[in-house]
Amino acid sequence: MEIKTSTFVKESRNLLYVQVYEKLKEDIEKGYLIKGEKLPSIRKSEKLFKVSKTSIEKAYEKLVDEGYIISKPQSGYFVDADKEQIKIRNEFREPAKIIEETIRFDFRSENIDVHMFDCRLWKKYIKEVLENYSEITTYGNAQGELTLRTALQQYAYSVRGVLCNVDDIIVGASFQSLLYILCGLLPHSLHVGMEEESYVQARKVFKDYDFKISNLTLYEDGVSIRELKEKKIRLLYINAGSQGKYHQPLSKQKKVELIQWAKETNSYIIEDDHNGELRYVSKVKSAMQGFDMGEHVFYIGSFSRLLLPSLRISYLVLTKEMSNIYKNVKDEYAPTSSKIEQLALARYMMDGHLERHVKRLTKKYEKKCRKMEVLMNRYFSDIPYILEEASLQFILDFKEMDIIRLTKSLKREQIACTITDNKKLMLSFAAIEEDCMEEGICLLSKIIKENIA
Amino acid sequence: MEIKTSTFVKESRNLLYVQVYEKLKEDIEKGYLIKGEKLPSIRKSEKLFKVSKTSIEKAYEKLVDEGYIISKPQSGYFVDADKEQIKIRNEFREPAKIIEETIRFDFRSENIDVHMFDCRLWKKYIKEVLENYSEITTYGNAQGELTLRTALQQYAYSVRGVLCNVDDIIVGASFQSLLYILCGLLPHSLHVGMEEESYVQARKVFKDYDFKISNLTLYEDGVSIRELKEKKIRLLYINAGSQGKYHQPLSKQKKVELIQWAKETNSYIIEDDHNGELRYVSKVKSAMQGFDMGEHVFYIGSFSRLLLPSLRISYLVLTKEMSNIYKNVKDEYAPTSSKIEQLALARYMMDGHLERHVKRLTKKYEKKCRKMEVLMNRYFSDIPYILEEASLQFILDFKEMDIIRLTKSLKREQIACTITDNKKLMLSFAAIEEDCMEEGICLLSKIIKENIA
Repeated sequence: MEIKTSTFVKESRNLLYVQVYEKLKEDIEKGYLIKGEKLPSIRKSEKLFKVSKTSIEKAYEKLVDEGYIISKPQSGYFVDADKEQIKIRNEFREPAKIIEETIRFDFRSENIDVHMFDCRLWKKYIKEVLENYSEITTYGNAQGELTLRTALQQYAYSVRGVLCNVDDIIVGASFQSLLYILCGLLPHSLHVGMEEESYVQARKVFKDYDFKISNLTLYEDGVSIRELKEKKIRLLYINAGSQGKYHQPLSKQKKVELIQWAKETNSYIIEDDHNGELRYVSKVKSAMQGFDMGEHVFYIGSFSRLLLPSLRISYLVLTKEMSNIYKNVKDEYAPTSSKIEQLALARYMMDGHLERHVKRLTKKYEKKCRKMEVLMNRYFSDIPYILEEASLQFILDFKEMDIIRLTKSLKREQIACTITDNKKLMLSFAAIEEDCMEEGICLLSKIIKENIA
Repeated sequence: MEIKTSTFVKESRNLLYVQVYEKLKEDIEKGYLIKGEKLPSIRKSEKLFKVSKTSIEKAYEKLVDEGYIISKPQSGYFVDADKEQIKIRNEFREPAKIIEETIRFDFRSENIDVHMFDCRLWKKYIKEVLENYSEITTYGNAQGELTLRTALQQYAYSVRGVLCNVDDIIVGASFQSLLYILCGLLPHSLHVGMEEESYVQARKVFKDYDFKISNLTLYEDGVSIRELKEKKIRLLYINAGSQGKYHQPLSKQKKVELIQWAKETNSYIIEDDHNGELRYVSKVKSAMQGFDMGEHVFYIGSFSRLLLPSLRISYLVLTKEMSNIYKNVKDEYAPTSSKIEQLALARYMMDGHLERHVKRLTKKYEKKCRKMEVLMNRYFSDIPYILEEASLQFILDFKEMDIIRLTKSLKREQIACTITDNKKLMLSFAAIEEDCMEEGICLLSKIIKENIA
C-alpha cells in the first residue's frame, strides 16, 4: 500500500482537506489503490500529507460518505470501490454534448416571430414583480395566484365568453399539468373520445390514468353525436376551434348539441381552447364553455402563441361539481407555474396589454398568412393544403414522399418544419419573418420536388 | 318591443358597435328585453341608434355568438336568454374577494426570510436571459433546458453525490409534476410504501394513479427492511435525510441495505431529497442515489428553500431503465418549468452562486436554529420537540390542545404557523427575522398556555 504523495502539492486555492480527498479519490479512480486495500492510519497520513489531523479526518469522512472507502471499527479504513465501479461511475457523468443547430428558415409552429412580442414591456412587468420581496420570498398558491385568476376570469369572459368564478380556475404550467390534475378529480377509468391525429400530450395523460381511449371519426362538421352515443363515450376531449377533416370551428348549433349530449348521458367535455382568441381568417367564436352552465364542460386556455412560448402559464376552468371536489383536495397539490411570471401576467392583463397584443397579432398573422398562401399557390400549385388557424400553420398533404430522405435534405438546407408519420407536412408562418418567406418556400419546393418520385 | 334608446348616448371612447352591443346586452340582462322577443330589424335599428348598418350587424353578431340572441333565417333576431339564465351567468362572474392577511410573526416553513436571498443578483440573471430574444421566443425543451440539466448534473454530483447523465434528468415545475411523469413510466398499480405522516402531495399522485399505498412504521433508524419484505412493497417513497420517529438521516449502512432490498425484490425507490444539501446541525450526507448504479433509485431534488419559494424548478434523475423508456415517449410531454427561469438558474449555478448561497444559508440557519432552540427552552420548557432539519422547523408535541380555539387565537394575534390534525405544532425559523423571534415565541407561549386546559 503506497500513496503517491510525491504528486501531492498543497495549493492555496482550495481547502486542505479537499485537496487530500481529491488526491486519494484520484488514486482510487486511477486504480493505484485497489478494492480491499487498507489506507494508512490517520496519524500516518498526517505525516505523509503534512496536514492536520482534522483535515485527514474530514477527507476520510468524505470518501466514506461517497462510497470510495469504508471504515471498519477497530481496524481502520479500506478502499471499497474497484476500478470497474469507478469506471461505471465516471461513465454516468459524461459531459453533455451541446449541439447548436442553425436554422435558416423556421417553419415550425411552436415558435414565434422575434418581433411579435414586446419583450421590453414584459421585462418591465417582471422587474416590477421582482421588486416586491414579500411576494417572491413566499410560496405560491397551488391553485394559482388570486390576482392572476381574477384577471383570467375577466379576460376569459370578455374574450372567450367563458363563465366562471375565480374559485373554479386552476393555473398550471401547461395544459398537460392541468390535465394531470383534472383526471385525478374525475371518476376512474373513464372512456375518452378524441380525434385521432393530434393531442398526443393529452393522450399521454389519459393513458397514464388508464382511461380507455377511442378515436373519433373526422367528419366535416366535427364530432358526431351518434358516434359518441354508440361508442358510449363519457369524456370528450375536443378543440372546438379546430374540428374534423378541415380543422373548422364548431357551429353554435353543434356546441349546444354536444352539451345536450353531455347532459343526457351524464358525460364530461374537455374543451382545449389554446389560442382560441387568435382568429385572423375566420371569426372569433365564443368558447363552448359559455353555453354550458358550469355543469359538463371543462375549459383549458393557454397562451403559448399569444405571449412568449417560453412562458409556462395555462388555466383550467372546472365545472361546479369538480370545483367542489377540488376544494377538498387543494392542499394536496403543489403550485406548478412560476409565481413571478403569474404576477407579471396578472398586471400585464389588468393593464389591458393582452387584449391589445392579441389585436396586433391578429393583424400581423392575417398578413403573414395571406402572404404564405400566395407563395404556396405559386410554388406548390398542385398540392392540397388546409389551414389550421389556431396553430398558425398550413397542412400539406403529400401522397408519396420518402420521409427519411426528405428530413435529411431539409436538415442539410437548415429548414425546420414538422413532418408527420402519415406524410403530412406542417408549414407555419408563426416564427419565420416575412422577408425570408419567399426564399424559404422556394427552396423548400425545390427540395420536395427532388424527394418526390 | 321597445328598446330604450333614450339612454343610449354615443361616446367617443369606444367603438360604436361595442356601444350598441353593450346597450342591448344590458337591456337583456335587466329584463327589459325578454326571451322570445323579436329585436328590431337591422334597418330599423340603424335609425334607432343612429349608427351605420355595419355597426348594427357586428353588434347583433356578437350577441348571437354569446348566446344572448338567436338569428332565425327569414324571420330576424330574437332574444334567447331569460332573466334567470342571465342571473346565473352573472353569479358565475362574482368578483374575487381579495383578503389581505397581515402576519406579524411568520413561523411557517414554506417561506423564507426576505434578507436571505440576493434578489438583485437574481434579477440580473433574469434580465440577461430576457435580452436573448431567440431563447425566449422559442418553446422550451420538455425534458428541461440542456444548459440547466448540465448545471444540475454537475451540482448534484458535487454536492449530493448523485451520479447521472444529462439524459437521465427531467426538469419540472415541482416534485409533484415530476412524480406525475415518473408514475406514468412505472408499471401499473405498484404497491407503494411510505411513512405515514407527511408527503401529502406525493400521496395524491399515487392515489391518482391507483397505486396501493401502505404506511410504514416509524422506527428510530428509519424504514425496516423486514417490513418492506413482509408487506411486499415494490416502490418505496423515502426522504433519506429525514427518516423515522426523529427525522434523522439514514446511515450509509441502511442506504446500502435498501438498495440491496430493491435489487433482490426488483423494486424501486424514490428518494425525495428536497433541500438535502441544507444541513446546519447534522452533517451533509450523500444522497442514496449515489450508492445505486442507476438501477433502482429515482432521485428528486428541489430548491424551494434554497432559492426563492416562488421559483418553480425541481429535477428528477431517472434510472437507466426508465431513462430509456422516457426517451421513447419524450415527445408526449409538455415542458412545465418556465424556460426563462431555467436559463437564469443555469447561469446562476454555472457561476457558482448556488453553492456559495447554500454555504451562506447554512451559517444563517445554524444561527437562527440555535437562537430558536434557546427561546423554545425558555418559553416551552416542558414541551417535547424535535428538529426537522430539511424543513427548517421544530415539531412540538402537544398532548392536549383545542386545535380550533388555538387556531383562532393565533389568527387574532397575527401569528402564522402550521398545526397538524394530530396536535403537532410546527414552528419554523425560516421566514421569521431574528429580531422578532423572541417577541413571537413569547406571545405564542402565552396563547398556548391559555389554550391548554
